[in-house]
Amino acid sequence: MQAVIFHETLRYVQDHPVPGPEKGQARIRVNLAGICRTDLEIMKGYKGYKGILGHEFTGVVESCNDASWVGKRVVGEINAACGLCEWCMAGLGRHCPNRETLGISGLDGCMAEYCVLPVTNLFSADGLSEERAVLTEPLAAACEILEQVPLQGNERVVVLGDGRLGILCAWVLATVAGRVTLRGHHRDKLELARWRSLETSLRGEGIEPGADVVVDATGSGRGIEQAMDLCRPRGTIVLKSTVALQGEVNLAPLVVNEITLVGSRCGQFSHALDMMHRFPDMPLERLITHRYPLHQALEAFETAQSGEALKVILEVHKG
Amino acid sequence: MQAVIFHETLRYVQDHPVPGPEKGQARIRVNLAGICRTDLEIMKGYKGYKGILGHEFTGVVESCNDASWVGKRVVGEINAACGLCEWCMAGLGRHCPNRETLGISGLDGCMAEYCVLPVTNLFSADGLSEERAVLTEPLAAACEILEQVPLQGNERVVVLGDGRLGILCAWVLATVAGRVTLRGHHRDKLELARWRSLETSLRGEGIEPGADVVVDATGSGRGIEQAMDLCRPRGTIVLKSTVALQGEVNLAPLVVNEITLVGSRCGQFSHALDMMHRFPDMPLERLITHRYPLHQALEAFETAQSGEALKVILEVHKG
Ligand SMILES: [Zn+2]
Ligand SMILES: [Zn+2]
Ligand SMILES: [Zn+2]
Ligand SMILES: [Zn+2]
Repeated sequence: MQAVIFHETLRYVQDHPVPGPEKGQARIRVNLAGICRTDLEIMKGYKGYKGILGHEFTGVVESCNDASWVGKRVVGEINAACGLCEWCMAGLGRHCPNRETLGISGLDGCMAEYCVLPVTNLFSADGLSEERAVLTEPLAAACEILEQVPLQGNERVVVLGDGRLGILCAWVLATVAGRVTLRGHHRDKLELARWRSLETSLRGEGIEPGADVVVDATGSGRGIEQAMDLCRPRGTIVLKSTVALQGEVNLAPLVVNEITLVGSRCGQFSHALDMMHRFPDMPLERLITHRYPLHQALEAFETAQSGEALKVILEVHKG
Repeated sequence: MQAVIFHETLRYVQDHPVPGPEKGQARIRVNLAGICRTDLEIMKGYKGYKGILGHEFTGVVESCNDASWVGKRVVGEINAACGLCEWCMAGLGRHCPNRETLGISGLDGCMAEYCVLPVTNLFSADGLSEERAVLTEPLAAACEILEQVPLQGNERVVVLGDGRLGILCAWVLATVAGRVTLRGHHRDKLELARWRSLETSLRGEGIEPGADVVVDATGSGRGIEQAMDLCRPRGTIVLKSTVALQGEVNLAPLVVNEITLVGSRCGQFSHALDMMHRFPDMPLERLITHRYPLHQALEAFETAQSGEALKVILEVHKG
């Protein structure tokens, strides 16, 4: 089958063997796959991963022991947990120390004609367009904030970073908090992000400090400094960027102002699917700025790296 | 009066005018005053403070409109808040943006024969030895952790740093959590810290990772890295060090493991006083390793800077 493989370099191949499924797994015929920042980081050495890239997809179950799944349109939770450890027992398989992760560690990814996942990872994508379904994973990461930071609704929230994740976080937060401001430095991306009461703010323009919650989705090592400047004493900063701080960063404001910093990673698919069903007007499709057929994957990755794109999608099969 | 003044350099003077009190204030005859890390940081330029140093004291009220305080042994909350802003209204005067702080900003400190504080800042030190009373402020800073991080009692806690603050945090946490380990690199200080079930661990010796709560009281820019190594996924790191991170610090583990980082500063005197009354066997006095008369303040500061001392106390008046 066709597949996009990372092994020292990125390659598009046509002769990769079709995978499994083994017992308890499903083989999925991939329709759409998304390129994510994590994929770009893997290409710089993250996790030392080698294999088929990709963890954001939607497709149709082609083969599976459990016949009730066959032919179903699905999305899939990317962490395959052991199911036995204390984390799994607590329902936190995403933190299972023995987990394998689709296209990130131990499990071949979804930028291929077919991929394989445990049946327990599957969720029905019934009633969702493919464009929305393929965004379930990044939307789940944004929804995770609501699980970690309880909001009353009267909070003032600032989201830093007008990339995909920042925009998704802003939309998710705007479903709960009354005053949400998305701050970035791309006028066009801020324009594209407008939805409901969401406010936008171009970096360099004045912004009122004293926010209750500040989300750092800048993907930059300096985002946390802006976040500390904007967060009120006893407020909360949600850290969504997994980058290393470079140079001197003074964390004293965290201590002096007794700020809580919450590291936030990926979230539950069920929450993202629920969000999409509850807010059919959330303009997720706008995030898909570029589409390429699978055989143009290398070009698609160049676009994703350029910084102009929001979400770049690979078209694998027609739904 | 005699006083220790910082103004470009540290000076001991004998001719400083005796202060106030104005309406609503009390003049306190200082018995003991403690030297704190913050004092040393002020000498490096922190807050641009100039004036009488010192914010840790115990003494006797000498003059006050409210006669019921006169002659009472007291300790005093160091933040004089405006009483009018939203922070003050919420009982968080310690975060009042208009606050002045004894010996730190706007208010002359307590390393003098007399100091002045609003009556509303005073707490009775009845029933406490002077050695315990003078430690109320740093103990309150340790108690603050219990306010910010709710503990069930079955948590495993690691405190990093065997200085005064680290030891106080370990003692306070040991009153609640079953398994508390204090980790540092001074064998003698760890020895001195032993109390109740508190365990100690010399840096370099192996320590089990996966702690539920890790307190960084190292006062070092690298403490947070050790804390991230030792904290379990979804655990909590309490940041007590107000130092700047130097060089590259990778905060990605916070995000990947969804750790909550809680900045923690000073705490409520009422909680510290309550703690001292409930745990009369908490060996606070052990922390006082050096005592100097006020006129030897410069020598006392040298000892405090040397790193060998735990708490250095200035003796001002005999109780
Ligand atoms: Zn992703
Ligand atoms: Zn597991
Ligand atoms: Zn202090
Ligand atoms: Zn105030």
